[in-house]
Amino acid sequence: MNQEIVRDIVSRVDHTLLAQTATWEEIRALCDDAILFGTASVCIPPCFVRRAKEYVGDRMAVCTVAGFPNGYHTTAVKVFEAKEAAADGADEVDMVIHLGLVKEGRFDLVLDEIQQVRKAVEGKILKVIVETCLLSQEEKIKLCGVVTESGADYIKTSTGFSAVGALVSDIKLFAGHIGEGVKIKAAGGIASFEDAVEFVAAGADRLGTSRIVKLLKEKL
Amino acid sequence: MNQEIVRDIVSRVDHTLLAQTATWEEIRALCDDAILFGTASVCIPPCFVRRAKEYVGDRMAVCTVAGFPNGYHTTAVKVFEAKEAAADGADEVDMVIHLGLVKEGRFDLVLDEIQQVRKAVEGKILKVIVETCLLSQEEKIKLCGVVTESGADYIKTSTGFSAVGALVSDIKLFAGHIGEGVKIKAAGGIASFEDAVEFVAAGADRLGTSRIVKLLKEKL
Repeated sequence: MNQEIVRDIVSRVDHTLLAQTATWEEIRALCDDAILFGTASVCIPPCFVRRAKEYVGDRMAVCTVAGFPNGYHTTAVKVFEAKEAAADGADEVDMVIHLGLVKEGRFDLVLDEIQQVRKAVEGKILKVIVETCLLSQEEKIKLCGVVTESGADYIKTSTGFSAVGALVSDIKLFAGHIGEGVKIKAAGGIASFEDAVEFVAAGADRLGTSRIVKLLKEKL
Repeated sequence: MNQEIVRDIVSRVDHTLLAQTATWEEIRALCDDAILFGTASVCIPPCFVRRAKEYVGDRMAVCTVAGFPNGYHTTAVKVFEAKEAAADGADEVDMVIHLGLVKEGRFDLVLDEIQQVRKAVEGKILKVIVETCLLSQEEKIKLCGVVTESGADYIKTSTGFSAVGALVSDIKLFAGHIGEGVKIKAAGGIASFEDAVEFVAAGADRLGTSRIVKLLKEKL
């Protein structure tokens, strides 16, 4: 594959390790790889943010999660968690919406919650995970409007902990319905450079995956 | 099955709905069923605790989760979440340990975190989820000691969101290694009264499941 395309893909990767059993040693190795290959960020559990930021300094952006992966924490907990992440040095926060509110049709409350988190992490990049595999087409379209209105930076497809990850069809749907300022992150199940190219072509600006860097390491 | 055995089993059930998409209507129906059949509690997402407690009053105990299901939140977030749950009216809190610390062998830090949550919800029942399917036998045994020392009320097998739920063999292992004051909750995959009886016989005091009540409803 063309080296310029490879470099472009890697620069869009949130190099991700969100396994329950992840240790600091593994997170540090993830940071080393992210710096070596020049990914967009490392995406790691909240409890490792402070240590990771101290370790990478300005060499790498640190991304973490809030209300993850089930999204049914109270708003106060999501706000507290996001604020703490920012205070610990996180540059980016990927929050999960409360899907029960979506199923109740309370998009007003979904919006309000995102806006509260948005305020809590002003100046940081905020991504909103909607967990596409649990949504109808209509709900996905409505959430494009909600995320646009909220002032978040990204709409993100998936946590990687539910039934299905990112689908190219959802990226295309998002691209057709989000507002101008909002970007798209595809996450979950991105397993090859060919996948990655397809997601980017469909409109994804970021890719949440660990496998792209693994593929690069295998070629070293 | 003998009606006394059925009643005993039901009285040990934490009637559980922790699906990401659960709505208030579903949670209310869960509460109604729990009261009708006399379960030990309803186990529900944090965002529904206040409303559920207002709804059930003294007719039913409300159980919720903290640091759930992945356990890698910061300690401050777990403490905040548990405190808020108690303030919202939760009678019981099921917290998840940080498994990365277990893998690093830092059982001292696992203990410290549980103790901080224990303090935050004094007077409430605290259960500690260790996610058995991600642990070695040695780690399970060590965690029996940690949970005993922490002052928590229960050790609980599983979140129901990882690869495997409760195993009878793990209940037997726990029963052989926990201290006198600590009880055992089996959760995840308990699908029949026969299962339930087996878990209780092995040493489980509580059962986290939605299917026992569903089976009773089918017989109405």
